[in-house]
Amino acid sequence: MTRKSGGASRSTIRDVALRAGVSASTVSRVLGGAYPVSSATRTRVMRAVRDLDYVADARAKAVAGVGTPTLAFVLEDITGPSFAHMAHGVEREATRLGHLCLVCSTEGDVQHELDFVEMMRAQRAAAVILVGGSADTPEYRERTRRMADSLASAGSRLVLCGRPPLGPGAPVTVIEYDNEGGAYALVAHVLAQGHRRILFLGGKPDHTTALGRERGYLAAHRARGVDADPALLLHGDFTRDSGHRLMRQALAAELEFTAVVAATDMVAAGALTALHEAGLNVPGDVSLAGYDDIPFARDLHPALTTVHVPYEELGRLAVRTALGRTAETRAEHLLLGTHVVVRDSVRAVE
Amino acid sequence: MTRKSGGASRSTIRDVALRAGVSASTVSRVLGGAYPVSSATRTRVMRAVRDLDYVADARAKAVAGVGTPTLAFVLEDITGPSFAHMAHGVEREATRLGHLCLVCSTEGDVQHELDFVEMMRAQRAAAVILVGGSADTPEYRERTRRMADSLASAGSRLVLCGRPPLGPGAPVTVIEYDNEGGAYALVAHVLAQGHRRILFLGGKPDHTTALGRERGYLAAHRARGVDADPALLLHGDFTRDSGHRLMRQALAAELEFTAVVAATDMVAAGALTALHEAGLNVPGDVSLAGYDDIPFARDLHPALTTVHVPYEELGRLAVRTALGRTAETRAEHLLLGTHVVVRDSVRAVE
Repeated sequence: MTRKSGGASRSTIRDVALRAGVSASTVSRVLGGAYPVSSATRTRVMRAVRDLDYVADARAKAVAGVGTPTLAFVLEDITGPSFAHMAHGVEREATRLGHLCLVCSTEGDVQHELDFVEMMRAQRAAAVILVGGSADTPEYRERTRRMADSLASAGSRLVLCGRPPLGPGAPVTVIEYDNEGGAYALVAHVLAQGHRRILFLGGKPDHTTALGRERGYLAAHRARGVDADPALLLHGDFTRDSGHRLMRQALAAELEFTAVVAATDMVAAGALTALHEAGLNVPGDVSLAGYDDIPFARDLHPALTTVHVPYEELGRLAVRTALGRTAETRAEHLLLGTHVVVRDSVRAVE
Repeated sequence: MTRKSGGASRSTIRDVALRAGVSASTVSRVLGGAYPVSSATRTRVMRAVRDLDYVADARAKAVAGVGTPTLAFVLEDITGPSFAHMAHGVEREATRLGHLCLVCSTEGDVQHELDFVEMMRAQRAAAVILVGGSADTPEYRERTRRMADSLASAGSRLVLCGRPPLGPGAPVTVIEYDNEGGAYALVAHVLAQGHRRILFLGGKPDHTTALGRERGYLAAHRARGVDADPALLLHGDFTRDSGHRLMRQALAAELEFTAVVAATDMVAAGALTALHEAGLNVPGDVSLAGYDDIPFARDLHPALTTVHVPYEELGRLAVRTALGRTAETRAEHLLLGTHVVVRDSVRAVE
């Protein structure tokens, strides 16, 4: 590729250092992104880089990498509000610590994810955070293990946030939120209201996040000595449309249930509309609960009973842990708790 | 930074070419990301790069840049569902055209945005898409113009999506959606239902998207010969919490109105809850309309009358235009239309 940029682009790392009033090694550290640099210094250096239209020359580039200190965040679906809030927490914390945050939404495309991680390695990203469940297959573990080793070899760090852990020895930080515990507490609450036939609108059958929530649903039934009817366990995905579709199917099939527990608030929102379309009142005729406590949950009518997951805090924690700024640094496996938020969508039945 | 990666990392571009079964120049083109390469070829090459833990050497790096063909997308708030859907459209189209899409959420931090664009220039990104309104100041125009020139000098392209245009001569592609026209059509519809005092829950007073929607609100009043009471024009931001807060303030101040038009569906969702909390029925006591037609708009109760903006299609169009794959390529300024979606939240008054 020909360098089209003008004469200014021939300026050297020393010109940048001079203009920014710092040492050349500081410029190289800023461009390298591997070491902590005060955000003020970084700003001065990057401004000089821009003013001089500086492009690191081959040697500097090879030594220093090519940009601002970076942190990468990989999620499956950017339109999923819970992940968006986690990304928000990551962004805020990364910015606070003087790092630029790059987000990549893969839509579950493994190749897409591998390409992005490869690029972040070349970029010398300080850390790469993978969020959201996935199928916990040997292929997943091997692929992810290779990512972890490859990133470690470049001085970077892989963080798994809600992704299945890789087993001992892998150079990763694992942060999980308790899907099973949250679902257990929520379904126990619904059972305590007297419901005995609870429809579960689940996610993909092999998706670890969905499976954790399903396990909690079943465990709560067992703990109360209630048999969960397998016919009431439906599978779809985590979208609003999936909830709308599954709910219509359940009504069309005339399944018997007095309450519905959705795998996410988005699923619950779609289910709520399907119930309204069928002329059913919530919670008068059917009780409904969700999972995630996205902001919108309060604005559904009735306000949705759900499980609160501290997504934004989770994102901030992932960054602090990845950049080694907290006491938890040594802990390679963190499990965050969740809690039930009781609103107006579940009522007691006799 | 020391290269910790093992012997494999000493493999050359020829080793990669051999393993991928392509020419070294193809490998360089894939890594360079400046030229179109079939996604199958790119996949083969990137897999070989990973298998061999290949790190482009200084010369190759300087010549070829450092990664998969990339496209960058900059938005202000990743938790805003409308922008998330635009990002979704960008991702899907970028992937279809064999490009990896990087998203950066700036939270309105100008420095953050400049740093990201600088990095994307170093990365030789095929295009950088900036979305969402901003304050249209001389400072904005100068800063953005510098970005556009800097990217152009690196063979990249700046795309402004919903951002104020820069005036003649700037090397940018501008794609706007018609905020004023959409708001005009929506408010005309509300006026046609007999409403004469319409509360407007607007965004930041200097934000171009918010201003466009406000202009449409005022123009619709003028066109119908109705005086818009300035007291009914409130300003906040585009979040759910802003709508909730402004609505509570309007009720506490005992402003007189029979309908509410919110600057976004998120704002409308917060307002709806505030109305419910005040014991008011929508649309029985107060009519309510939003803007954006996010998926959730259908799940509010009553289903929200709003303005449909084809965000996902907008994102796809931005990518096609930026990568020069469409007939519109020559058109440097595209304006997309919007339309009103009538649901159940606005009723006629006598």
